[in-house]
Amino acid sequence: MDYDKILPGIIKKTDSKILLIVMDGVGGLPHPETGKTELETAKTPFLDEMAEHSSCGLTIPVLSGITPGSGPGHIALFGYDPVEVQIGRGVLECLGIGAPVEKDDIAIRGNFATISPEGIVTDRRAGRIATEENKKIVSIISEKIKEIKGVKVSIYTVKEHRCAIVLKGSGLAPSVSENDPQKEGLPLKPITALDKPSEKTAEVLRELEDRVIEILKGVDTPAKGLLFRGISKLPDIKGFAEKYKLNAACIATYPMYKGVAKVVGMDVIDGLDTIEGEVDALKELYDKYNFFFLHIKKTDSYGEDGNFDAKVKIIEEADRYLSKIKGMKFGAIAVTGDHSTPALLKSHSWHPLPLMINSPYAIADDVKRFTERECAKGILGKVYSKEIMYLLLAYSLKLDKFGA
Amino acid sequence: MDYDKILPGIIKKTDSKILLIVMDGVGGLPHPETGKTELETAKTPFLDEMAEHSSCGLTIPVLSGITPGSGPGHIALFGYDPVEVQIGRGVLECLGIGAPVEKDDIAIRGNFATISPEGIVTDRRAGRIATEENKKIVSIISEKIKEIKGVKVSIYTVKEHRCAIVLKGSGLAPSVSENDPQKEGLPLKPITALDKPSEKTAEVLRELEDRVIEILKGVDTPAKGLLFRGISKLPDIKGFAEKYKLNAACIATYPMYKGVAKVVGMDVIDGLDTIEGEVDALKELYDKYNFFFLHIKKTDSYGEDGNFDAKVKIIEEADRYLSKIKGMKFGAIAVTGDHSTPALLKSHSWHPLPLMINSPYAIADDVKRFTERECAKGILGKVYSKEIMYLLLAYSLKLDKFGA
Repeated sequence: MDYDKILPGIIKKTDSKILLIVMDGVGGLPHPETGKTELETAKTPFLDEMAEHSSCGLTIPVLSGITPGSGPGHIALFGYDPVEVQIGRGVLECLGIGAPVEKDDIAIRGNFATISPEGIVTDRRAGRIATEENKKIVSIISEKIKEIKGVKVSIYTVKEHRCAIVLKGSGLAPSVSENDPQKEGLPLKPITALDKPSEKTAEVLRELEDRVIEILKGVDTPAKGLLFRGISKLPDIKGFAEKYKLNAACIATYPMYKGVAKVVGMDVIDGLDTIEGEVDALKELYDKYNFFFLHIKKTDSYGEDGNFDAKVKIIEEADRYLSKIKGMKFGAIAVTGDHSTPALLKSHSWHPLPLMINSPYAIADDVKRFTERECAKGILGKVYSKEIMYLLLAYSLKLDKFGA
Repeated sequence: MDYDKILPGIIKKTDSKILLIVMDGVGGLPHPETGKTELETAKTPFLDEMAEHSSCGLTIPVLSGITPGSGPGHIALFGYDPVEVQIGRGVLECLGIGAPVEKDDIAIRGNFATISPEGIVTDRRAGRIATEENKKIVSIISEKIKEIKGVKVSIYTVKEHRCAIVLKGSGLAPSVSENDPQKEGLPLKPITALDKPSEKTAEVLRELEDRVIEILKGVDTPAKGLLFRGISKLPDIKGFAEKYKLNAACIATYPMYKGVAKVVGMDVIDGLDTIEGEVDALKELYDKYNFFFLHIKKTDSYGEDGNFDAKVKIIEEADRYLSKIKGMKFGAIAVTGDHSTPALLKSHSWHPLPLMINSPYAIADDVKRFTERECAKGILGKVYSKEIMYLLLAYSLKLDKFGA
């Protein structure tokens, strides 16, 4: 990004505090009967009052028309280019279940699969075994395999046939071909290093593949081996402290978002599970940090369920709890989402979504409500999500002049 | 483009159909007496009703302030970066007259010129000979020169002193210096290969230059030789089938647009010459394709003529015929132009022009008419032409999520 060329010369450390509120999947589409979106239907006196005193706009999460997953959606909100900085599937799987992945670790999505004695993959999902059975198998394997060639191997149950694997050790790199044949009735594909630095990883995975097959021979389960997918490591990026000179806290309830926040160097606050608890945590931690990422999950979940009314309710609930931040002093506050999740589509979508930036230095525009169509009229116009961090830094007066 | 990095992983084939209606040069400027643009003056009940139910915006054809020719204007609408993907002048000349140019062919714009026996170019346009005389000369040359060094040579009359030349054969590349001295009173410039792969092309053109001079010595005409310009070949790009998994039809009346559509792999429907015929063709072909590019030419032609009233009339005519698509089912429809052609300027211009996207998943905004000033208030905001294809794919649900 062009920002990377400019930022190191102009970023400065100041006392002002930034609050980034992400209402996951908050953008929506009109209800066929009322013609109103979820945000337009909800009563949100706090957000609306804030919009009245803010600069508003619409965000494009990645590129026009592109629907982001949670990874790219948040990486962009944290000020990185989501096309340049892609978080591998293996890493995302680990982050999603809260499995620890650190710099230089290799993270992998695993499928338990049924494999014939001749090495043919006959069921890539081992009959979708129950999560409990998965846990039992993982515990058997974990007991027998702790280390391979000096590399620590950790396996975690995800759900049904899915698990996550983390390799920790020196000299590992992720450019390794996957053994998943993608179709049933085919043999396991050979695990091959695609470059020199990845040779050790390939060796470890070949041995892991063999040993798991060996162990599962003696276990009464359709799971007879492991398919390795999305072999990846953390992206090599500067974290918030180095990039923005910010001391950042992540206030979130779900592992995925805590995980992505950790990738960019935020301190992750644990033990939170309600919006109320999150707002309380923000108040408690106010003195300790100068950047807060506050993530509200359920707006997305109800959108994915296609539950328009529940999404409206959770927006109203969020509005009520967020109103407690009144009186707290921030150099700049942004409220937006990582993408839209219209109940109508029951999935993430590409639609631009509302953004407001509140700051003593933001021009209030004509926008009276925090909704898609109102914010479309705002003074910020269309903003790429990856630009928001730089706006927050600017509005909280943390950026010097560029050039003389 | 960043889209190229994402698209292969998320594009999917579905049954939904896309319609891209391009009203060439439709954008305009206010009439000095009425203060209204061509679109604002025209009565367009169909387009206005559609705008009322669509997401609207303004398109920037290439970059702010840049006036595009038809090539870049359409290449952008087809989802390619018009700065990266440039169609050479020779290729455009051939496409414009419907001369067949295929992958690996070399296409050239030719000028018949007056050249003295000493090889000095005394008139770069051979006194602008009549098109009829051009045709006569082309037929004499074509009879005597069919092939040079195994390369098939085809010459086509364009207009007055202008012709187009296509070289077809193996081992050709277009990096060859032109023999046009650009000024009169100077000798023909030497034809030189600028890289190794273009050496054969240079040899063929040197021989063609000599043989044409030899042939024209015996003909009673001021045309005594050929200047070669815009030596080029088709851009090396993925077509619609590979890039978008779309089976695309071009419904257009003019060779230039059919030509550009062919470059991106559309099937070109021949024999059309009215808007009514084009809309009928759309109905007939509906089952056969899942992407339709419908091009309306005359809005541009009357703009170029400076004929404000005729442009208004043709917009009204287009509105009437387009209204026949009511009731046809599309996943997404876009209506826009490739650029503005204000009658006031009698030429293409850089002004952003109206865009609307109609789809079950498009939020209707406050826009009530398909005009420049109304669409400027739309929820899509400013959209680069090259983004429109990706929006159409998104709105017709042909794109999967990017990242997990």
